[in-house]
Amino acid sequence: MKAVKNWIEDPAPLLRAGAGYTLAGSDADATPGFAGTKTAGEAALAANATEVSLLQEKLFANSLFDDSRSILLVLQGMDSAGKGGIVKHVVGSVDPQGVTHASFKKPTPEELEHDFLWRIRKRLPVGGQIGVFDRSHYEDVLAGKVLNLATPDVIDERYRQINDFESELVAHGTTVLKVMLNISADEQKARLAERLDRPDKHWKFNPNDIDSRELWNQYQDAYQAVFDRTSTTTAPWYVVPANRKWYARLAVQRLLMDALRNLNQDWPAPAFGVEEQRARLALT
Amino acid sequence: MKAVKNWIEDPAPLLRAGAGYTLAGSDADATPGFAGTKTAGEAALAANATEVSLLQEKLFANSLFDDSRSILLVLQGMDSAGKGGIVKHVVGSVDPQGVTHASFKKPTPEELEHDFLWRIRKRLPVGGQIGVFDRSHYEDVLAGKVLNLATPDVIDERYRQINDFESELVAHGTTVLKVMLNISADEQKARLAERLDRPDKHWKFNPNDIDSRELWNQYQDAYQAVFDRTSTTTAPWYVVPANRKWYARLAVQRLLMDALRNLNQDWPAPAFGVEEQRARLALT
Repeated sequence: MKAVKNWIEDPAPLLRAGAGYTLAGSDADATPGFAGTKTAGEAALAANATEVSLLQEKLFANSLFDDSRSILLVLQGMDSAGKGGIVKHVVGSVDPQGVTHASFKKPTPEELEHDFLWRIRKRLPVGGQIGVFDRSHYEDVLAGKVLNLATPDVIDERYRQINDFESELVAHGTTVLKVMLNISADEQKARLAERLDRPDKHWKFNPNDIDSRELWNQYQDAYQAVFDRTSTTTAPWYVVPANRKWYARLAVQRLLMDALRNLNQDWPAPAFGVEEQRARLALT
Repeated sequence: MKAVKNWIEDPAPLLRAGAGYTLAGSDADATPGFAGTKTAGEAALAANATEVSLLQEKLFANSLFDDSRSILLVLQGMDSAGKGGIVKHVVGSVDPQGVTHASFKKPTPEELEHDFLWRIRKRLPVGGQIGVFDRSHYEDVLAGKVLNLATPDVIDERYRQINDFESELVAHGTTVLKVMLNISADEQKARLAERLDRPDKHWKFNPNDIDSRELWNQYQDAYQAVFDRTSTTTAPWYVVPANRKWYARLAVQRLLMDALRNLNQDWPAPAFGVEEQRARLALT
């Protein structure tokens, strides 16, 4: 078997939005921590999938016993940034039994009657699950801010509520992994044009995508505020350059794999006497 | 590319539990409709996955517009029959965005306070989704019957309620695909022994599995009653020989693929003017 070129450096510290991080200074074409080509990146993605799948099985197995942990992968980004591709090509490599997927669109009238975290809490992963949010509570401080759906005071309060909420999740055993897929405005233009050109992609296009694109700078500013206010030690943001889809997938896979590895789970010990059950089975 | 050996005959009519079907007369080692070896079966499974994935994407795309259909795949079988393997290896080939998985275990006290279909209704797939039930409402006429958890009259009434319930689902656009994975008693013994032998499989073993095994014949009879009473024209049962895991996976994939094909869905027509949106995009 040919050796697969893999990460030359842990990408997590390179992608984390820490103090002083600026989105404007980030290169959406970059491939931090990986020196190979697209072909090498795709080979690495396929090669790593086996470990991710095994780690997820341990997460699930342990949830049936004492150690009930979960992962919440929050995916954010401008339209066409590749959130769906992460779900399909990264999350898609693990057993569906262990995945809970939730997509958050414009809130319904019923959802608007409740606190903005109400609909989020209902879709959280239970123990043993990798929960994936395609958009999330962050829309309430992104679209919410840019479209003036709430007053600045309310938006300001929401950052605090989000931090409290995520701390609570972490305290209860959920690893909160927040990823912003960062594409450039030019790349988005090309991707939206492709969706308009291909009949099999029309369903992915919505005229609202262009409304949002017309507010590109305001959204970039709103994302910057999100990183400034909610990239905490317990739940940091990772900004993943996403102009190259293969890199974004490889990077999110690595972040997910490390989140699973950090749970340090082994196969659970049997809650029964193995010899006793062997003897029972032999009699049947 | 090497040609892949595939089905020589549509397996659906061969597997359907129609009038006069008997579980006792079924061979769990058989491979109806497929003449190849394990290697050929695994190659066919991989080759067909692309079409299943594409069909699922169309199902999902159409649900965003007018044609909101769904599939409910009900998986039943004795312990170790391979339900989990179907989820991982068949359902696992489609985009997690379009899959809703639910596993039904022994009812909780809250669930027992409600009608037996209450917990089932809560987990039904919405439009655009392939819902997968790992065990289901059928446990209430299987374990329910064998363990005398309900009177014969109540069990009898449940068959009727199930048929009404499934007719209702079908009338609302859900294809109900019911699969019983049929393993032999000897094969189960070998699989349970393996779970006891391997520390990475201990979590899949439960001493209750042997309790159920001791009631093997009663469960076979209860399955026969299920086929006799609930294998309807709108929602027939398929009994899939499952001693060979590769065959069971290939067969369920084929049933799922045909259920999707029968929806006859194309890509949805755009709900916007393509030229108009191209012009808007060009200005950004």
